[in-house]
Amino acid sequence: MNSQNSLLKRIKKDEILAMEKRFRANFINSISGFKSVGLIGTISKTKQTNLAIFSQVFHLGANPALMGFIVRPEISPRHTLENIEETNYFTFNHINEEFYKQAHQTAARYEKEVSEFEATGLTPHFENDFIAPYVKESHFRVGLKLEEKHELSINNTIFLIASVQEVILNEEIIEKDGYIDIEKAGTITSSCLDSYHVTKHLDRLPYAKP
Amino acid sequence: MNSQNSLLKRIKKDEILAMEKRFRANFINSISGFKSVGLIGTISKTKQTNLAIFSQVFHLGANPALMGFIVRPEISPRHTLENIEETNYFTFNHINEEFYKQAHQTAARYEKEVSEFEATGLTPHFENDFIAPYVKESHFRVGLKLEEKHELSINNTIFLIASVQEVILNEEIIEKDGYIDIEKAGTITSSCLDSYHVTKHLDRLPYAKP
Repeated sequence: MNSQNSLLKRIKKDEILAMEKRFRANFINSISGFKSVGLIGTISKTKQTNLAIFSQVFHLGANPALMGFIVRPEISPRHTLENIEETNYFTFNHINEEFYKQAHQTAARYEKEVSEFEATGLTPHFENDFIAPYVKESHFRVGLKLEEKHELSINNTIFLIASVQEVILNEEIIEKDGYIDIEKAGTITSSCLDSYHVTKHLDRLPYAKP
Repeated sequence: MNSQNSLLKRIKKDEILAMEKRFRANFINSISGFKSVGLIGTISKTKQTNLAIFSQVFHLGANPALMGFIVRPEISPRHTLENIEETNYFTFNHINEEFYKQAHQTAARYEKEVSEFEATGLTPHFENDFIAPYVKESHFRVGLKLEEKHELSINNTIFLIASVQEVILNEEIIEKDGYIDIEKAGTITSSCLDSYHVTKHLDRLPYAKP
């Protein structure tokens, strides 16, 4: 869509503050753009598995290999946080078009005794020496270890830093220079709180030089 | 692609550590999934504008409305960081298919005297009472104020927390419940360090209940 600049409207902070709460949640959740979305798999000390969809996820660094996650402790992923703190390990599983509805359903507020794997029909898969469960339906899975937990006083969210322990994927989608064609793994993206999108590759661009 | 699970390979930490440096950078930058990518516009005290592409960007909270950014100070966006710290304000501009090549080019290591706007042919646009420059070619722009800066000792990156001051968009893409159809704004996503993707909407799903 080629919006004319003249059509653009400027919505200022006071208008955003005056928005109805759920309207504002949708509005603000939309503005950061498309999100890295995935399912976080965990297990408690008593071997209760848990699965939750997260989209406040980002690359933090390649050397050491680190990922960042924002957790809102007041909502359902609190079981995820408890399990991560109990065992230190968790998994991040890319979501495919084939199971995004089940992935979304993991956001429901199930009781802790209920495994979202069972509740949504997704399949836990364990590697022999990694404690946290992967999602068998996912074609791209990352095993992680908690390194740091920071409480962000500005809005009472939790910022987790995790180190990459292993990556499970189809080797054929790794290109010669290490680039992984995640579109070939069927990875999808999300926007706002409840919208899912597949992607179509435009191009890879060469290293930018002045 | 329906990869058979039997085709998946497990690449463990020691293998990742043994990868050649640039190969590992591509590999690890691919694993977090599709990224929120945009152009950050800044201005120095001496009115020198700067524009840089960022993809370590995430939603941090809706109330207050906050976004998070990871900055790697050793590479070119250091001018961005300097300007943000000098003026406290910056802009985040979604990238469209029409100018993603120019957006990518802002990653080149220009000298501080060079404005990436001029170097790449993108157009700075100023709103009357907001100091930082927007990108005129972008159909979706967010004005931000720096709230907190945290140095992450684990890998010497900088974590910025910014509050949303204003959002500039075509009002017609805001749905009744506050959801913004960013696909209609032409917003694209990225993967790895240099790959760009358009999206195709699958669905919005209802609020998940057990």
